[in-house]
Amino acid sequence: MNREEPLFRKVKNYSYQELKILVGEIRDYIKTVVSKNTGHLSSNLGTVELTIALYRVFDPDEDIIIWDTGHQAYTHKILTGRYGRFNTLRQRKGISGFLRREESVYDVFGAGHVGTGIPAALGIEKALSMVNEKRNVVVVIGDGALTSGMSLEALNQLKQLNSRLKIILNDNGMSISKNVGSLSMTLTDLRLNPVYREIKEDIKGTLESMRMKKLEKLLSRIKDGIKHTFLGGNVFEDFGLNYLGPVDGHNIKEMEAIFKTIKEFDEPFIVHVTTQKGKGLEYAEKDPTKFHSVSKIDPETGERLYTDSLISYSKVFGKVIIELAKKDTRIVAITAAMPDGTGLSEFAKKYPGRFYDLGITEQLCVTFAGGMAVKGTKPVFAVYSTFLQRAFDQLIHDIALQKLPVVFAVDRAGIVGHDGPTHNGIFDIAYLNMIPNMKILAPSSLQELANMFYTLLLHEELDGPVVVRYPRQSEYGILSEIIDNMSQIDLWKWEKLIKGKTRIAILATGSMVQPARDVAAKYGLNMYNCRSIKPLDTTTFDAIMKENDIILSIEEGVRIGGFGSSLLLYASSKRYSGKIHVMGIDDIFSEHGTRAEILKELGLEYGGIESTIKKLRGELNAYNDRVRKDRNNLTGYQLDR
Amino acid sequence: MNREEPLFRKVKNYSYQELKILVGEIRDYIKTVVSKNTGHLSSNLGTVELTIALYRVFDPDEDIIIWDTGHQAYTHKILTGRYGRFNTLRQRKGISGFLRREESVYDVFGAGHVGTGIPAALGIEKALSMVNEKRNVVVVIGDGALTSGMSLEALNQLKQLNSRLKIILNDNGMSISKNVGSLSMTLTDLRLNPVYREIKEDIKGTLESMRMKKLEKLLSRIKDGIKHTFLGGNVFEDFGLNYLGPVDGHNIKEMEAIFKTIKEFDEPFIVHVTTQKGKGLEYAEKDPTKFHSVSKIDPETGERLYTDSLISYSKVFGKVIIELAKKDTRIVAITAAMPDGTGLSEFAKKYPGRFYDLGITEQLCVTFAGGMAVKGTKPVFAVYSTFLQRAFDQLIHDIALQKLPVVFAVDRAGIVGHDGPTHNGIFDIAYLNMIPNMKILAPSSLQELANMFYTLLLHEELDGPVVVRYPRQSEYGILSEIIDNMSQIDLWKWEKLIKGKTRIAILATGSMVQPARDVAAKYGLNMYNCRSIKPLDTTTFDAIMKENDIILSIEEGVRIGGFGSSLLLYASSKRYSGKIHVMGIDDIFSEHGTRAEILKELGLEYGGIESTIKKLRGELNAYNDRVRKDRNNLTGYQLDR
Repeated sequence: MNREEPLFRKVKNYSYQELKILVGEIRDYIKTVVSKNTGHLSSNLGTVELTIALYRVFDPDEDIIIWDTGHQAYTHKILTGRYGRFNTLRQRKGISGFLRREESVYDVFGAGHVGTGIPAALGIEKALSMVNEKRNVVVVIGDGALTSGMSLEALNQLKQLNSRLKIILNDNGMSISKNVGSLSMTLTDLRLNPVYREIKEDIKGTLESMRMKKLEKLLSRIKDGIKHTFLGGNVFEDFGLNYLGPVDGHNIKEMEAIFKTIKEFDEPFIVHVTTQKGKGLEYAEKDPTKFHSVSKIDPETGERLYTDSLISYSKVFGKVIIELAKKDTRIVAITAAMPDGTGLSEFAKKYPGRFYDLGITEQLCVTFAGGMAVKGTKPVFAVYSTFLQRAFDQLIHDIALQKLPVVFAVDRAGIVGHDGPTHNGIFDIAYLNMIPNMKILAPSSLQELANMFYTLLLHEELDGPVVVRYPRQSEYGILSEIIDNMSQIDLWKWEKLIKGKTRIAILATGSMVQPARDVAAKYGLNMYNCRSIKPLDTTTFDAIMKENDIILSIEEGVRIGGFGSSLLLYASSKRYSGKIHVMGIDDIFSEHGTRAEILKELGLEYGGIESTIKKLRGELNAYNDRVRKDRNNLTGYQLDR
Repeated sequence: MNREEPLFRKVKNYSYQELKILVGEIRDYIKTVVSKNTGHLSSNLGTVELTIALYRVFDPDEDIIIWDTGHQAYTHKILTGRYGRFNTLRQRKGISGFLRREESVYDVFGAGHVGTGIPAALGIEKALSMVNEKRNVVVVIGDGALTSGMSLEALNQLKQLNSRLKIILNDNGMSISKNVGSLSMTLTDLRLNPVYREIKEDIKGTLESMRMKKLEKLLSRIKDGIKHTFLGGNVFEDFGLNYLGPVDGHNIKEMEAIFKTIKEFDEPFIVHVTTQKGKGLEYAEKDPTKFHSVSKIDPETGERLYTDSLISYSKVFGKVIIELAKKDTRIVAITAAMPDGTGLSEFAKKYPGRFYDLGITEQLCVTFAGGMAVKGTKPVFAVYSTFLQRAFDQLIHDIALQKLPVVFAVDRAGIVGHDGPTHNGIFDIAYLNMIPNMKILAPSSLQELANMFYTLLLHEELDGPVVVRYPRQSEYGILSEIIDNMSQIDLWKWEKLIKGKTRIAILATGSMVQPARDVAAKYGLNMYNCRSIKPLDTTTFDAIMKENDIILSIEEGVRIGGFGSSLLLYASSKRYSGKIHVMGIDDIFSEHGTRAEILKELGLEYGGIESTIKKLRGELNAYNDRVRKDRNNLTGYQLDR
């Protein structure tokens, strides 16, 4: 699979003139591929020189190099044997947009969610020390990683573990969006008040003669320098790290010098590299957040291609929450570094006093929301399904156990598409379903999404947490009309959409309602929109079981522990004698591709639903035939009545 | 419910002489109750004076006071209206051993797991600011809280949020066991090199005249003092906290002075209070870890009552892992601050180079283990089921997705007893079951536990993560014999224990196998030990479905998404025409009490299983009667064949 000679081996011998050309080529290549294939543009444009400098000093064949998150690793991919395949980025069967161990030996540890780099690198370092293998372990993190709990847990243990990790901090001053938190403020201070500048000349001189004694003396000078400059303390020093920087992340020579320095030392280092998000591409430099993760765009202008009247669920949510906040001043919105992605950036501007961006800290966000709920506000935490996994314990222990009325707007629930398995939101139904006192809703349309928040936040007296899960999907609609048409609905009641002519019913949730309805209409089946995944609407379900011999449940989530699974449990307790067939996501991690491609592969669209219905009808007919022949030997389905 | 006049209102007016008597009484009361009822002894003996001083300065009726964890809140309970009921501590229907909102208005935010205090307090503070309610928000944390990711996430956001939190750090130098990490080292430095001592006299003088101007000047002097003393930087300052301390946590007068000082300021503070774990009780002072959480003991000597030949699963695990580590040098053990609880303390002594206690950092532990697995070691992370919830995302994203061969020893799986709902390990089957590539085993006896680890670590080529879950339970056994009898078993094969005479089968897992077997023996049922919860042994299960009309599954875990739920899904896909009845834990949080009491209440013991079997047999007979009468109108169970 990985036949291409890795480019990094050649790059070691390039002149700086040749490197300059290479940098331009790579940047152009990234721009061309990402604008066509979608992907993370701004952050990857920022790390071209950093990656080259790193791989001219550290050797991916000898040293262990870990990339955190993967928003910044495209140049790494290009240099480590994937130049040729890079144009398949994020496509079905193409290379992943993140780090994947299956894809390359140079992807030492997979990454998609932020903050895993330092913990994994520490484990690798300690494993190597057990077999007395002495290799450099380098981990490249973004500044956003410094807000996440698991990174902080690891930083706090570095000293204890006598780590020699070399942490390269790629600081573009913003992670995904504007960065927050004290560590980030420290970085800003350091950018403005550089220590390294003052001692740079020493380093250069030292590198020329390259004697350890001198280097050691230098190190102690560096340390003193830092201590004297930052009276309040450089927090990295507190964690046992030797700090060096900031260094210009677009100057290969300077970075090489500093990387060579740290390579000589048997001590842990953090090198503060400042990069520019969107570097080299005017429109991306100007608005790096907008071009953090892009859809198909014109590579020259950055303009979005194929814009039409489609609106995303996120966009509707963002608009709705502003409207509701006008009517109830207790409503507060919380995000974990995703104001744009979740649709909250307009809310943030309109209601800065009621908006909290707490950084990449899902654990903090959940329990913070719990605290807010205790004192009578109405907190809404908007978060991607995949990232809420980080706060699973907090959902149980802080929110559900105490029945705190927090509303969770769970975006990107289901298949996300090109981002692939690290970002798919396929577990939320299952991990929320098992939590007592938790309620789960899924809208089947943009209007229903609006109606749900409208009802929840203005008309419902919440006695505990409620989740609204919705997909990464755009549908036809007119935003103003949706807002004008918002109305109160019976959240906990399943809606009968079609009264069929057979004893077969489809029970679908959320994104699966629309395709299922089309199939049900064609085949004359009973059709329900099960907007409340938990609690089950047992009154309706009892009636459904009476009136149907076959029930097909469909959800965009894992089958194990999901909605269909709940139906089976309830039906079993009621000794339902018909058959329930559960459609959902199999017990495997699915790969990246377009959302439509993956859903098709999983059978979660019109075609898949239709063929399941045909199969079930076939079984029913065969059974009925058998029964007619031999009424004394029944083994399954009931007769049509 | 809460009729008692809270003692803290009177205590405000006590003389120091009266306080001294009160302290002695409370300490004696805690000793007497805990030694009888079980509970957290050492930590609570350490916080008597701290709580009194705090409640003489801050007023629980006016100020918001949050306790983190709850290992330290017994005096808080005694002072806030629960003096009379304190002797029901941790008993069925008695008061909880942790903070519970349902129990008292003074338990502002529930707590059981560490690290929730600062996040919740921040949320409360911000909610109050939205309604312009100015109240002091105080949060009391232990030093262990400073290792946990969610605390660190919150600390990092304090400055950004313009917080005025007053954090009281109860530093007994060890949290549960010896504390680890850089922040903890900082505390040790501060203990040895106190800043506050030097300025104490100033504070006293200032408090006498009590003028704000002077206080402000003092504050800036305090800050300067800290900066000058700690050239390396006081990490709390980096997070925007004014640090004061250390102050003697057993000197009420001194604490009052410092608490009064911080109360005057509109700024965030951390007050470093040093306490002694086990204070006032000789045997607990000498070995505070041993008496952190105690079973029934002699209050005078600390000797454990009712010791007999029962051995816990944890103890067997601890012994087994040592034996296996002798045979395979790649085996490494990891704990999140629980070397004693998980049975690893002997391993830690024998193999210090292969043992990692990373503090209360479950997220770090999991991904660190992943890193270790990448480089060919055999990491075993021993952790309580309830705490592993903290690392749910890491299990999916870092371990399972990458198929890394990490072994998880999941202790306290199921009902834990007196610790109650915050500590019950009832979700693990469900939250692990939904993760692709994850395997889950549950031993039904001490010997099977040993055999599982023996087989997994010495004889199995792991292609991904494996969890072994076992209960907080002790059984008769002889440790040396268990070790001597360790043998290889077929981990993934269900074991037929009884060949019955009816078409009814019981499929039980782990702790439920023993009571279920007794019932099966009595009623002549087919009986299986389903040691592999995931993957299902479908070969055996297919045969079971052929041979039985009723299948009863039993697990000590939530029903939704659990083992029985998996059986239903599989059976549904195979169109099984018999009935499956799922026993497990209902969708509610159960309360505290003895393990036996709670299991009985849940029907998960001999009596509950027997009555379910009787009911199912009754249904089967009634059905058969109906069928004999009217063969044309079948609606459910198959006939006996």
